Amino acid sequence: MTDRVAKRRDMFAARNTAVLLVSCSDQRGLLAALTDFIYRHGGNIRLAEHHTDFEEGMYFLRLEWSLEGFHLDRSVFSEAFEPLARKFNMTWEARYSDQVLRIAIFVSKYDHCLVDLLYRNQIREIPGEIVMVISNHPDLESVTIPLGIPFHLYPITANNKPEQEEKEIELLKSQSIDLVVLARYMQVLTPRFLQVFPNRIINIHHSFLPAFVGEKPYHQAYRRGVKLIGATSHYVTEDLDEGPIIDQDVCRVSHKDSLPDLIRKGRDLERQVLARGVRLHVLNRVLPYGNKTVVFE
Amino acid sequence: MTDRVAKRRDMFAARNTAVLLVSCSDQRGLLAALTDFIYRHGGNIRLAEHHTDFEEGMYFLRLEWSLEGFHLDRSVFSEAFEPLARKFNMTWEARYSDQVLRIAIFVSKYDHCLVDLLYRNQIREIPGEIVMVISNHPDLESVTIPLGIPFHLYPITANNKPEQEEKEIELLKSQSIDLVVLARYMQVLTPRFLQVFPNRIINIHHSFLPAFVGEKPYHQAYRRGVKLIGATSHYVTEDLDEGPIIDQDVCRVSHKDSLPDLIRKGRDLERQVLARGVRLHVLNRVLPYGNKTVVFE
Amino acid sequence: MTDRVAKRRDMFAARNTAVLLVSCSDQRGLLAALTDFIYRHGGNIRLAEHHTDFEEGMYFLRLEWSLEGFHLDRSVFSEAFEPLARKFNMTWEARYSDQVLRIAIFVSKYDHCLVDLLYRNQIREIPGEIVMVISNHPDLESVTIPLGIPFHLYPITANNKPEQEEKEIELLKSQSIDLVVLARYMQVLTPRFLQVFPNRIINIHHSFLPAFVGEKPYHQAYRRGVKLIGATSHYVTEDLDEGPIIDQDVCRVSHKDSLPDLIRKGRDLERQVLARGVRLHVLNRVLPYGNKTVVFE
Amino acid sequence: MTDRVAKRRDMFAARNTAVLLVSCSDQRGLLAALTDFIYRHGGNIRLAEHHTDFEEGMYFLRLEWSLEGFHLDRSVFSEAFEPLARKFNMTWEARYSDQVLRIAIFVSKYDHCLVDLLYRNQIREIPGEIVMVISNHPDLESVTIPLGIPFHLYPITANNKPEQEEKEIELLKSQSIDLVVLARYMQVLTPRFLQVFPNRIINIHHSFLPAFVGEKPYHQAYRRGVKLIGATSHYVTEDLDEGPIIDQDVCRVSHKDSLPDLIRKGRDLERQVLARGVRLHVLNRVLPYGNKTVVFE
Repeated sequence: MTDRVAKRRDMFAARNTAVLLVSCSDQRGLLAALTDFIYRHGGNIRLAEHHTDFEEGMYFLRLEWSLEGFHLDRSVFSEAFEPLARKFNMTWEARYSDQVLRIAIFVSKYDHCLVDLLYRNQIREIPGEIVMVISNHPDLESVTIPLGIPFHLYPITANNKPEQEEKEIELLKSQSIDLVVLARYMQVLTPRFLQVFPNRIINIHHSFLPAFVGEKPYHQAYRRGVKLIGATSHYVTEDLDEGPIIDQDVCRVSHKDSLPDLIRKGRDLERQVLARGVRLHVLNRVLPYGNKTVVFE
Repeated sequence: MTDRVAKRRDMFAARNTAVLLVSCSDQRGLLAALTDFIYRHGGNIRLAEHHTDFEEGMYFLRLEWSLEGFHLDRSVFSEAFEPLARKFNMTWEARYSDQVLRIAIFVSKYDHCLVDLLYRNQIREIPGEIVMVISNHPDLESVTIPLGIPFHLYPITANNKPEQEEKEIELLKSQSIDLVVLARYMQVLTPRFLQVFPNRIINIHHSFLPAFVGEKPYHQAYRRGVKLIGATSHYVTEDLDEGPIIDQDVCRVSHKDSLPDLIRKGRDLERQVLARGVRLHVLNRVLPYGNKTVVFE
Repeated sequence: MTDRVAKRRDMFAARNTAVLLVSCSDQRGLLAALTDFIYRHGGNIRLAEHHTDFEEGMYFLRLEWSLEGFHLDRSVFSEAFEPLARKFNMTWEARYSDQVLRIAIFVSKYDHCLVDLLYRNQIREIPGEIVMVISNHPDLESVTIPLGIPFHLYPITANNKPEQEEKEIELLKSQSIDLVVLARYMQVLTPRFLQVFPNRIINIHHSFLPAFVGEKPYHQAYRRGVKLIGATSHYVTEDLDEGPIIDQDVCRVSHKDSLPDLIRKGRDLERQVLARGVRLHVLNRVLPYGNKTVVFE
Repeated sequence: MTDRVAKRRDMFAARNTAVLLVSCSDQRGLLAALTDFIYRHGGNIRLAEHHTDFEEGMYFLRLEWSLEGFHLDRSVFSEAFEPLARKFNMTWEARYSDQVLRIAIFVSKYDHCLVDLLYRNQIREIPGEIVMVISNHPDLESVTIPLGIPFHLYPITANNKPEQEEKEIELLKSQSIDLVVLARYMQVLTPRFLQVFPNRIINIHHSFLPAFVGEKPYHQAYRRGVKLIGATSHYVTEDLDEGPIIDQDVCRVSHKDSLPDLIRKGRDLERQVLARGVRLHVLNRVLPYGNKTVVFE
């Protein structure tokens, strides 16, 4: 790590905070009880964001507080919090800013999303540690070598996908990977793989979903003659391109834009929309529920 | 017409120009031959825009020239131009800025697009004459009465659509209507109707097509949890929501936006995207081909 | 009011809620104390949004709760809340959804913003009662007459501004006006006027401030050759075009756009940005501080 | 160059074309004469774009034609074209797709624009040869070394700027540099430098000009409380931040965004707006005139 990068790291260094994510059915007094809990233990709340889905009767909360003065050690947080959690029947999770998320990136042949994620991670715009890159093609090894990031090749054929994925799962588990990012990985993962990492796999699809699901969305967009193209970052579920959407964006195109123009303009969209999705996830700002997300930006 | 409106009309008064729209297969020398034709007859070209679809081998041109000094009367233009048109096997059309397009607007119960189109027409942002409003519901008559625009009611039931549409067609023909605008008209037109006005019917669909075709697109968008909603103005063809797209736009939404919020934000999109589509058509800036459009903005 | 409008009114009818707006210096336990206060009196919090300006050490809160089950009558709310307010040295305000904001719109000769605000108010997109329109020119009286909204003419000359403004202030006070909207009003208000309605006057400026302050911003933009034009809604303060910004937006322009094109495209921006600014204010979602705003969207 | 990059290069390989750029006063018959000239010598026009500034009476043209079948060698083009150019008193330039533009990039300490330009050049999204990087600080040498691009260090102090710039000019000339790109170069160039490369120096300014000229525009934007931040790519002239604008873009910010958030969001804007500006210039799509540009996108 160069000096230059080191300086950037400091500038963006995560403050010493904790985050509590809560989902439960909507009930009176939730926010009062939760903020009181943090306050009673000496925590200074920096950010409290909540959302109620009145239709579904669901409540979502993200609390972020400074650990300075907070006198509830993380080793006993769970014990202290459980009575409250049980009372409101909460699903909850606590995370600490000094816990580094461990990330694996899957790629195939296109390098633009990979190069972009690596750069943003390097300057700490996306925190976390990119532990490895996995690919079904050897092409992008040259991208990761200079950075010292291991590159693992698992070629996929018509017959070997289940076996290769088992090896990948084993590797990911052995390295305690928290998040898998599909950065233009051109293979559909099996249900088995998805079950191992529920809501822990983020994909970039190069269209504004639900338009142009499946293969070659730019070709589809070109044929349809749309005046906008888009990109979507989403969690991967068993229904192809149907998982919870984290972020989307579009840019304007016209009859002047050939198919290569769509691909070129789309690269900028893909890079940004994937990076924003990954960043929001890593900062514990996304709560998926059903096939939707609550995103506390 | 008040003084205020009159002044605006002058400000935006169309200059005395002619427009030539050409489609043909791509050939050498097209632009030189066409610009030379206008020049030889004394026309000063204000705007020449062309597009070549190299994949389809198709050529599209829009020439606009000042009629001042142009010594080819419109009564003999066709005769003079035909030899050139035949040589290159062109499909062509000439239009003059003093020809006022005659417009009929179809509505049902929502008034936001109608009110907007009427206002933009009043201040001449959208040229042309809004000759009548046709509806299958009586609700919006109160909107057109103060403006002196005839409102025609043709209720549609499960059984009477073909007969009612015949009456509408007869009325539209008797009034020499050039363009039909579906401003949130909640009925699907029959193929018979569409054949009478090929590429002369513009619809607003309240989604970024091809996402959310068919009914209740905001409900669909809400259920899907998208982070953008959109609107699309397009020519109507027999395949529902599949016609050539003229314009599209989107705006950002989040988990905070309820279904009424999507509908509210969507109204602004619908108004603008429909108005832009109609304006571009009326200014002879749209050339549909296949299920695409060339839009010379 | 027609049936059509009446139905819309119901659909968008404000729910029976109260809103508490708080500003104070940042202190530990604020959110816990405030949410607890509402909860203890039986209120069900629908929305709690807060912001801390860590640089300035300022805290801002907006709490919205359902009045159903809330057993603290608005006549005694202040008395009950004051001890807490004093403890944290809060500036605060409570508002109720059944209190209708009384609005006066100032115009000169351009009607697009006025027509738009009237329409959005009619369909309840912007709640509140538009009590009167005031102008220094007679041109737009014809817009308000059909709607039964009083139109007051106060011509302004080089010499009579202070006297005319006194009459306007008297009228506004006699009608208990809560909010003044300058919808392309082409006069600079005197400091005396501004002091009577601090943070209660919203203006639309037709540029993305701070670019192109002062007169004829579209002319300035055209001469500068910018590739974007914008609009800004802001509270009016004594420093011309320097008041707290509520909302801004832009659209793309190019060398093809003449000055009238900028003005045309700008109308859509102005309408939307002013309407959003007014709506946010009326819904008690804007907290101005210094020359900035916190906007809880 | 890896295989991967090589394949991309092919995909985006420039077709064998010529481009003619013309500026002159507006006259009848210009387009006819120019297209006829190309046609007579066997050129097949792929793209003809023109613009008339009716206010200034100026005409601008960009003609692109296929060299296949064009029987006017570039060595004699000038001689053949001059009579026509003289007749209409044109300023003109002809460029050929196989002429590779030679680019020098100036940087200081921020690497995001440099890294981005290098990547886009590598995949041929931005054609041309990046011949060298020049800096007043040593920090970014590590970025260029792995790519084999020479890095030249010219530290600037209060006293040595004229001498250092003379050395830079000498170096740039000796390497036949066509275009200088200031990729967050934090020094103001002297008039002497600018005169050597008129309309050949592109800068990125991190605001939507003319807002926030000069130093620290994000700090200025943060203090002003704007709801949009922007970036501008422009040719550099003697009036700081007043040169002809090539491209601009903005993104939305809110009270939630701290100064580091503005800087982070701004990086994406800067990268894209600078890259688009450089790409348009390299593709001969920008005609500057006065302090404006015509951009044929």
